[in-house]
Amino acid sequence: MTHKFTEVRMTAYDHSSGYTYGTDAVPTSPLTLEDLRQIEAAAHVQPGDAELLARAEPILAPHAMEMVDTWRGILAQKTYLAAHSAHPDGQPNPEYAQASKPRFAQWIIDMCTRERDQAWLDYQYLIGARHMTAAKNAADGADSTPFVPLRYVLAFIAPTVEVGHRLLAEGFEGAELDAVRDAWTRAVTVAVTVWAYAYRDHPEQF
Amino acid sequence: MTHKFTEVRMTAYDHSSGYTYGTDAVPTSPLTLEDLRQIEAAAHVQPGDAELLARAEPILAPHAMEMVDTWRGILAQKTYLAAHSAHPDGQPNPEYAQASKPRFAQWIIDMCTRERDQAWLDYQYLIGARHMTAAKNAADGADSTPFVPLRYVLAFIAPTVEVGHRLLAEGFEGAELDAVRDAWTRAVTVAVTVWAYAYRDHPEQF
Repeated sequence: MTHKFTEVRMTAYDHSSGYTYGTDAVPTSPLTLEDLRQIEAAAHVQPGDAELLARAEPILAPHAMEMVDTWRGILAQKTYLAAHSAHPDGQPNPEYAQASKPRFAQWIIDMCTRERDQAWLDYQYLIGARHMTAAKNAADGADSTPFVPLRYVLAFIAPTVEVGHRLLAEGFEGAELDAVRDAWTRAVTVAVTVWAYAYRDHPEQF
Repeated sequence: MTHKFTEVRMTAYDHSSGYTYGTDAVPTSPLTLEDLRQIEAAAHVQPGDAELLARAEPILAPHAMEMVDTWRGILAQKTYLAAHSAHPDGQPNPEYAQASKPRFAQWIIDMCTRERDQAWLDYQYLIGARHMTAAKNAADGADSTPFVPLRYVLAFIAPTVEVGHRLLAEGFEGAELDAVRDAWTRAVTVAVTVWAYAYRDHPEQF
Protein backbone atom coordinates (compact mmCIF):
# COMPACT_ATOMS: atom_id res chain seq x y z
CA MET A 1 0.00 0.00 0.00
CA THR A 2 2.69 2.46 1.00
CA HIS A 3 4.81 1.23 -1.86
CA LYS A 4 2.04 1.75 -4.38
CA PHE A 5 1.37 5.23 -3.07
CA THR A 6 5.05 6.03 -3.42
CA GLU A 7 5.05 4.95 -7.02
CA VAL A 8 2.12 7.23 -7.76
CA ARG A 9 3.95 10.10 -6.14
CA MET A 10 7.14 9.33 -7.99
CA THR A 11 5.25 9.57 -11.22
CA ALA A 12 4.01 12.94 -10.09
CA TYR A 13 7.48 14.36 -9.43
CA ASP A 14 9.86 12.28 -11.49
CA HIS A 15 9.80 14.49 -14.57
CA SER A 16 13.22 16.02 -14.13
CA SER A 17 16.05 14.65 -16.19
CA GLY A 18 18.36 14.81 -13.23
CA TYR A 19 16.44 12.36 -11.04
CA THR A 20 18.65 9.31 -11.50
CA TYR A 21 17.97 7.42 -8.26
CA GLY A 22 18.95 3.77 -8.51
CA THR A 23 20.34 4.04 -12.03
CA ASP A 24 23.82 3.34 -13.38
CA ALA A 25 24.27 7.11 -13.78
CA VAL A 26 24.82 7.40 -10.00
CA PRO A 27 28.46 6.89 -8.95
CA THR A 28 29.26 4.63 -6.02
CA SER A 29 29.70 6.51 -2.75
CA PRO A 30 33.14 6.25 -1.13
CA LEU A 31 31.24 5.73 2.13
CA THR A 32 30.28 2.09 2.58
CA LEU A 33 27.03 0.67 3.89
CA GLU A 34 28.89 -0.13 7.11
CA ASP A 35 29.87 3.55 7.35
CA LEU A 36 26.21 4.45 6.84
CA ARG A 37 25.10 2.13 9.65
CA GLN A 38 27.63 3.78 11.95
CA ILE A 39 26.44 7.25 10.98
CA GLU A 40 22.86 6.11 11.63
CA ALA A 41 23.85 4.86 15.08
CA ALA A 42 25.46 8.22 15.88
CA ALA A 43 22.24 9.93 14.75
CA HIS A 44 20.26 7.64 17.10
CA VAL A 45 18.29 6.09 14.24
CA GLN A 46 15.93 3.47 15.68
CA PRO A 47 14.44 0.30 14.16
CA GLY A 48 10.96 1.84 14.21
CA ASP A 49 11.96 4.96 12.27
CA ALA A 50 11.41 3.41 8.82
CA GLU A 51 7.79 2.57 9.60
CA LEU A 52 7.13 5.98 11.14
CA LEU A 53 8.60 7.71 8.10
CA ALA A 54 6.53 5.51 5.77
CA ARG A 55 3.44 6.65 7.67
CA ALA A 56 4.66 10.26 7.41
CA GLU A 57 4.80 10.04 3.64
CA PRO A 58 1.04 10.52 3.01
CA ILE A 59 1.22 13.59 5.31
CA LEU A 60 4.28 15.16 3.72
CA ALA A 61 3.98 14.10 0.08
CA PRO A 62 0.93 16.27 -0.81
CA HIS A 63 2.86 19.24 0.66
CA ALA A 64 6.27 18.40 -0.80
CA MET A 65 6.28 21.18 -3.40
CA GLU A 66 5.04 23.67 -0.76
CA MET A 67 7.84 22.54 1.57
CA VAL A 68 10.36 23.32 -1.14
CA ASP A 69 8.73 26.74 -1.59
CA THR A 70 9.00 27.38 2.16
CA TRP A 71 12.68 26.43 2.18
CA ARG A 72 13.36 28.59 -0.84
CA GLY A 73 11.49 31.43 0.81
CA ILE A 74 14.00 31.26 3.66
CA LEU A 75 16.91 31.28 1.22
CA ALA A 76 15.34 34.12 -0.78
CA GLN A 77 15.60 36.45 2.22
CA LYS A 78 19.38 36.72 1.82
CA THR A 79 21.22 37.39 -1.41
CA TYR A 80 24.20 35.24 -0.34
CA LEU A 81 21.83 32.27 0.08
CA ALA A 82 19.58 32.93 -2.91
CA ALA A 83 22.72 33.30 -5.08
CA HIS A 84 23.17 29.56 -5.38
CA SER A 85 20.00 29.05 -7.38
CA ALA A 86 20.47 32.31 -9.35
CA HIS A 87 22.71 33.22 -12.26
CA PRO A 88 26.36 33.95 -11.38
CA ASP A 89 25.63 37.71 -11.50
CA GLY A 90 22.82 37.31 -8.97
CA GLN A 91 19.95 37.64 -11.45
CA PRO A 92 17.10 35.18 -10.85
CA ASN A 93 17.34 31.89 -12.73
CA PRO A 94 13.77 30.58 -12.77
CA GLU A 95 14.60 27.79 -15.23
CA TYR A 96 17.15 26.33 -12.83
CA ALA A 97 14.86 26.74 -9.83
CA GLN A 98 12.04 25.09 -11.75
CA ALA A 99 14.18 22.21 -13.01
CA SER A 100 15.61 21.34 -9.60
CA LYS A 101 12.37 21.76 -7.62
CA PRO A 102 10.76 18.38 -8.39
CA ARG A 103 13.97 16.62 -7.39
CA PHE A 104 13.92 18.39 -4.03
CA ALA A 105 10.24 17.44 -3.57
CA GLN A 106 11.04 13.87 -4.56
CA TRP A 107 13.85 13.83 -1.97
CA ILE A 108 11.23 14.39 0.77
CA ILE A 109 9.28 11.37 -0.44
CA ASP A 110 12.43 9.28 -0.82
CA MET A 111 13.37 10.20 2.75
CA CYS A 112 10.08 8.68 3.91
CA THR A 113 9.99 5.57 1.77
CA ARG A 114 13.36 4.44 0.44
CA GLU A 115 15.35 1.58 1.90
CA ARG A 116 18.65 2.76 3.35
CA ASP A 117 20.62 0.60 0.93
CA GLN A 118 23.50 1.17 -1.44
CA ALA A 119 21.27 3.03 -3.92
CA TRP A 120 20.17 5.41 -1.16
CA LEU A 121 23.73 5.98 0.00
CA ASP A 122 25.02 6.55 -3.52
CA TYR A 123 22.24 8.98 -4.31
CA GLN A 124 22.74 11.02 -1.13
CA TYR A 125 26.44 11.24 -1.96
CA LEU A 126 25.52 12.49 -5.44
CA ILE A 127 23.21 15.10 -3.91
CA GLY A 128 26.21 16.28 -1.86
CA ALA A 129 28.32 16.46 -5.02
CA ARG A 130 25.53 18.42 -6.72
CA HIS A 131 26.08 21.18 -4.17
CA MET A 132 29.79 21.31 -5.09
CA THR A 133 31.86 22.11 -8.13
CA ALA A 134 31.97 18.34 -8.66
CA ALA A 135 28.44 18.34 -10.07
CA LYS A 136 26.56 21.57 -9.29
CA ASN A 137 24.45 22.80 -12.23
CA ALA A 138 25.35 19.72 -14.27
CA ALA A 139 21.98 17.95 -14.04
CA ASP A 140 20.16 20.99 -15.43
CA GLY A 141 22.92 22.53 -17.55
CA ALA A 142 22.35 25.58 -15.35
CA ASP A 143 24.30 28.83 -15.35
CA SER A 144 24.78 29.48 -11.62
CA THR A 145 27.35 29.68 -8.82
CA PRO A 146 29.97 26.90 -8.90
CA PHE A 147 29.18 25.55 -5.42
CA VAL A 148 27.15 26.01 -2.24
CA PRO A 149 29.51 26.48 0.73
CA LEU A 150 29.27 23.54 3.11
CA ARG A 151 28.46 25.86 6.02
CA TYR A 152 25.10 26.69 4.42
CA VAL A 153 24.36 23.06 3.58
CA LEU A 154 24.92 22.12 7.22
CA ALA A 155 23.07 25.11 8.64
CA PHE A 156 20.08 24.28 6.47
CA ILE A 157 19.53 21.12 8.51
CA ALA A 158 17.56 23.34 10.91
CA PRO A 159 14.88 24.62 8.49
CA THR A 160 14.73 21.20 6.84
CA VAL A 161 13.91 19.71 10.23
CA GLU A 162 11.49 22.37 11.42
CA VAL A 163 9.35 22.56 8.28
CA GLY A 164 8.92 18.78 8.46
CA HIS A 165 8.09 18.92 12.16
CA ARG A 166 5.36 21.50 11.62
CA LEU A 167 3.61 19.48 8.93
CA LEU A 168 3.88 16.20 10.83
CA ALA A 169 1.52 17.68 13.45
CA GLU A 170 -1.20 17.39 10.81
CA GLY A 171 -1.05 13.61 10.92
CA PHE A 172 0.26 12.61 14.32
CA GLU A 173 -0.17 13.61 17.94
CA GLY A 174 1.22 13.03 21.42
CA ALA A 175 4.07 10.56 21.86
CA GLU A 176 3.73 9.40 18.27
CA LEU A 177 4.21 12.94 16.98
CA ASP A 178 7.39 13.19 19.07
CA ALA A 179 8.59 9.86 17.67
CA VAL A 180 7.96 10.69 14.02
CA ARG A 181 9.54 14.12 14.45
CA ASP A 182 12.64 12.48 15.93
CA ALA A 183 12.69 10.03 13.00
CA TRP A 184 12.58 12.99 10.58
CA THR A 185 15.34 14.83 12.46
CA ARG A 186 17.55 11.73 12.36
CA ALA A 187 16.83 11.02 8.70
CA VAL A 188 17.66 14.59 7.65
CA THR A 189 20.81 14.61 9.76
CA VAL A 190 22.05 11.32 8.30
CA ALA A 191 21.38 12.44 4.73
CA VAL A 192 23.16 15.77 5.17
CA THR A 193 26.09 14.03 6.88
CA VAL A 194 26.53 11.92 3.75
CA TRP A 195 26.26 15.06 1.59
CA ALA A 196 28.93 16.74 3.73
CA TYR A 197 31.32 13.87 3.15
CA ALA A 198 31.47 14.92 -0.51
CA TYR A 199 33.24 18.12 0.61
CA ARG A 200 36.08 16.43 2.45
CA ASP A 201 38.87 17.20 -0.03
CA HIS A 202 37.67 20.71 -0.88
CA PRO A 203 38.47 23.11 1.97
CA GLU A 204 37.92 26.07 -0.35
CA GLN A 205 34.23 25.04 -0.54
CA PHE A 206 33.56 25.12 3.20
CA MET B 1 17.44 38.28 36.22
CA THR B 2 18.32 35.75 33.56
CA HIS B 3 21.89 36.97 33.67
CA LYS B 4 22.15 36.50 37.41
CA PHE B 5 20.68 32.99 37.18
CA THR B 6 23.23 32.15 34.50
CA GLU B 7 26.06 33.21 36.73
CA VAL B 8 24.84 30.94 39.50
CA ARG B 9 24.66 28.04 37.07
CA MET B 10 28.11 28.77 35.73
CA THR B 11 29.47 28.54 39.22
CA ALA B 12 27.85 25.14 39.48
CA TYR B 13 29.53 23.72 36.39
CA ASP B 14 32.61 25.80 35.82
CA HIS B 15 34.99 23.59 37.76
CA SER B 16 36.78 22.06 34.82
CA SER B 17 40.18 23.39 33.90
CA GLY B 18 39.32 23.23 30.22
CA TYR B 19 36.40 25.66 30.37
CA THR B 20 38.10 28.73 28.95
CA TYR B 21 35.12 30.60 27.47
CA GLY B 22 35.88 34.27 26.86
CA THR B 23 39.52 34.03 27.97
CA ASP B 24 42.73 34.77 26.08
CA ALA B 25 43.36 31.01 25.95
CA VAL B 26 40.74 30.71 23.17
CA PRO B 27 42.16 31.25 19.67
CA THR B 28 40.34 33.51 17.25
CA SER B 29 38.07 31.60 14.85
CA PRO B 30 38.92 31.91 11.16
CA LEU B 31 35.17 32.38 10.64
CA THR B 32 34.21 36.01 11.13
CA LEU B 33 31.13 37.40 12.88
CA GLU B 34 29.76 38.18 9.41
CA ASP B 35 30.21 34.51 8.49
CA LEU B 36 28.35 33.57 11.67
CA ARG B 37 25.43 35.87 10.83
CA GLN B 38 25.21 34.24 7.39
CA ILE B 39 25.27 30.74 8.90
CA GLU B 40 22.54 31.85 11.32
CA ALA B 41 20.41 33.09 8.41
CA ALA B 42 20.83 29.75 6.64
CA ALA B 43 19.74 28.02 9.85
CA HIS B 44 16.64 30.26 9.97
CA VAL B 45 17.65 31.81 13.29
CA GLN B 46 15.02 34.39 14.26
CA PRO B 47 15.25 37.56 16.37
CA GLY B 48 13.08 35.97 19.08
CA ASP B 49 15.26 32.88 19.49
CA ALA B 50 17.62 34.44 22.04
CA GLU B 51 14.75 35.25 24.40
CA LEU B 52 13.17 31.82 23.96
CA LEU B 53 16.48 30.12 24.69
CA ALA B 54 17.02 32.31 27.75
CA ARG B 55 13.61 31.13 29.00
CA ALA B 56 14.62 27.53 28.19
CA GLU B 57 17.67 27.77 30.42
CA PRO B 58 15.83 27.24 33.73
CA ILE B 59 14.17 24.18 32.18
CA LEU B 60 17.34 22.64 30.75
CA ALA B 61 19.99 23.72 33.25
CA PRO B 62 18.82 21.54 36.17
CA HIS B 63 18.91 18.58 33.73
CA ALA B 64 22.16 19.46 31.97
CA MET B 65 24.23 16.69 33.58
CA GLU B 66 21.43 14.16 32.89
CA MET B 67 21.31 15.32 29.26
CA VAL B 68 25.02 14.57 28.95
CA ASP B 69 24.40 11.15 30.50
CA THR B 70 21.62 10.50 27.96
CA TRP B 71 23.86 11.48 25.06
CA ARG B 72 26.68 9.36 26.38
CA GLY B 73 24.28 6.47 26.82
CA ILE B 74 23.58 6.65 23.08
CA LEU B 75 27.30 6.66 22.31
CA ALA B 76 27.93 3.83 24.77
CA GLN B 77 25.77 1.49 22.69
CA LYS B 78 28.42 1.26 19.96
CA THR B 79 32.12 0.63 20.55
CA TYR B 80 33.08 2.80 17.55
CA LEU B 81 31.26 5.74 19.16
CA ALA B 82 32.22 5.08 22.77
CA ALA B 83 35.86 4.76 21.65
CA HIS B 84 36.34 8.49 21.51
CA SER B 85 35.95 8.98 25.24
CA ALA B 86 37.81 5.76 26.06
CA HIS B 87 41.51 4.88 26.13
CA PRO B 88 43.08 4.19 22.70
CA ASP B 89 42.78 0.42 23.34
CA GLY B 90 39.02 0.76 23.98
CA GLN B 91 39.21 0.42 27.75
CA PRO B 92 36.93 2.85 29.62
CA ASN B 93 38.52 6.14 30.61
CA PRO B 94 36.33 7.43 33.43
CA GLU B 95 38.76 10.22 34.34
CA TYR B 96 38.42 11.71 30.85
CA ALA B 97 34.64 11.27 30.79
CA GLN B 98 34.40 12.91 34.20
CA ALA B 99 36.68 15.80 33.31
CA SER B 100 34.87 16.67 30.09
CA LYS B 101 31.31 16.21 31.39
CA PRO B 102 30.89 19.57 33.16
CA ARG B 103 32.08 21.36 30.02
CA PHE B 104 29.41 19.57 27.98
CA ALA B 105 26.76 20.50 30.57
CA GLN B 106 28.00 24.06 30.56
CA TRP B 107 27.71 24.11 26.78
CA ILE B 108 23.96 23.51 27.13
CA ILE B 109 23.65 26.51 29.42
CA ASP B 110 25.87 28.63 27.19
CA MET B 111 23.67 27.69 24.23
CA CYS B 112 20.71 29.19 26.10
CA THR B 113 22.30 32.31 27.52
CA ARG B 114 25.40 33.49 25.70
CA GLU B 115 25.46 36.36 23.24
CA ARG B 116 26.38 35.20 19.75
CA ASP B 117 29.47 37.40 19.73
CA GLN B 118 33.14 36.88 18.93
CA ALA B 119 33.72 35.00 22.21
CA TRP B 120 30.90 32.59 21.37
CA LEU B 121 32.19 32.06 17.84
CA ASP B 122 35.78 31.53 19.00
CA TYR B 123 34.70 29.06 21.66
CA GLN B 124 32.54 27.01 19.29
CA TYR B 125 35.47 26.84 16.90
CA LEU B 126 37.65 25.61 19.78
CA ILE B 127 35.05 22.95 20.63
CA GLY B 128 35.31 21.79 17.01
CA ALA B 129 39.09 21.65 17.30
CA ARG B 130 38.73 19.67 20.53
CA HIS B 131 37.09 16.91 18.50
CA MET B 132 40.11 16.81 16.16
CA THR B 133 43.80 16.06 16.44
CA ALA B 134 44.24 19.84 16.70
CA ALA B 135 43.14 19.81 20.33
CA LYS B 136 41.42 16.54 21.31
CA ASN B 137 42.42 15.31 24.77
CA ALA B 138 44.56 18.42 25.36
CA ALA B 139 42.26 20.15 27.85
CA ASP B 140 42.27 17.11 30.14
CA GLY B 141 45.66 15.60 29.28
CA ALA B 142 43.61 12.53 28.35
CA ASP B 143 44.86 9.30 26.82
CA SER B 144 42.23 8.64 24.11
CA THR B 145 41.64 8.46 20.36
CA PRO B 146 43.29 11.25 18.36
CA PHE B 147 40.05 12.57 16.83
CA VAL B 148 36.30 12.07 16.44
CA PRO B 149 35.44 11.62 12.76
CA LEU B 150 33.39 14.55 11.48
CA ARG B 151 30.64 12.20 10.30
CA TYR B 152 29.81 11.34 13.92
CA VAL B 153 29.98 14.96 15.05
CA LEU B 154 27.46 15.90 12.35
CA ALA B 155 25.22 12.87 12.91
CA PHE B 156 25.07 13.68 16.60
CA ILE B 157 23.09 16.82 15.79
CA ALA B 158 20.01 14.58 15.84
CA PRO B 159 20.26 13.28 19.42
CA THR B 160 21.43 16.70 20.59
CA VAL B 161 18.24 18.17 19.14
CA GLU B 162 15.84 15.47 20.29
CA VAL B 163 16.98 15.27 23.91
CA GLY B 164 16.53 19.05 24.15
CA HIS B 165 13.12 18.88 22.52
CA ARG B 166 11.89 16.27 24.97
CA LEU B 167 12.89 18.29 28.02
CA LEU B 168 11.52 21.55 26.66
CA ALA B 169 8.03 20.05 26.87
CA GLU B 170 8.41 20.32 30.65
CA GLY B 171 8.38 24.11 30.50
CA PHE B 172 6.51 25.09 27.34
CA GLU B 173 3.41 24.07 25.44
CA GLY B 174 1.53 24.64 22.21
CA ALA B 175 2.91 27.14 19.70
CA GLU B 176 5.51 28.32 22.20
CA LEU B 177 6.85 24.79 22.60
CA ASP B 178 7.19 24.56 18.81
CA ALA B 179 8.99 27.90 18.74
CA VAL B 180 11.47 27.09 21.51
CA ARG B 181 12.16 23.68 19.98
CA ASP B 182 12.90 25.35 16.64
CA ALA B 183 15.19 27.80 18.43
CA TRP B 184 17.06 24.87 20.00
CA THR B 185 17.33 23.05 16.66
CA ARG B 186 18.73 26.17 15.01
CA ALA B 187 21.17 26.90 17.84
CA VAL B 188 22.54 23.34 17.82
CA THR B 189 22.84 23.34 14.04
CA VAL B 190 24.71 26.66 13.99
CA ALA B 191 27.10 25.54 16.72
CA VAL B 192 27.92 22.23 15.03
CA THR B 193 28.34 24.00 11.68
CA VAL B 194 31.05 26.13 13.29
CA TRP B 195 32.62 22.99 14.83
CA ALA B 196 32.61 21.34 11.41
CA TYR B 197 34.52 24.23 9.90
CA ALA B 198 37.50 23.21 12.04
CA TYR B 199 37.76 20.02 9.95
CA ARG B 200 38.05 21.73 6.59
CA ASP B 201 41.72 21.02 5.94
CA HIS B 202 41.70 17.50 7.37
CA PRO B 203 39.99 15.08 4.97
CA GLU B 204 41.49 12.13 6.84
CA GLN B 205 39.35 13.12 9.84
CA PHE B 206 36.00 12.97 8.04
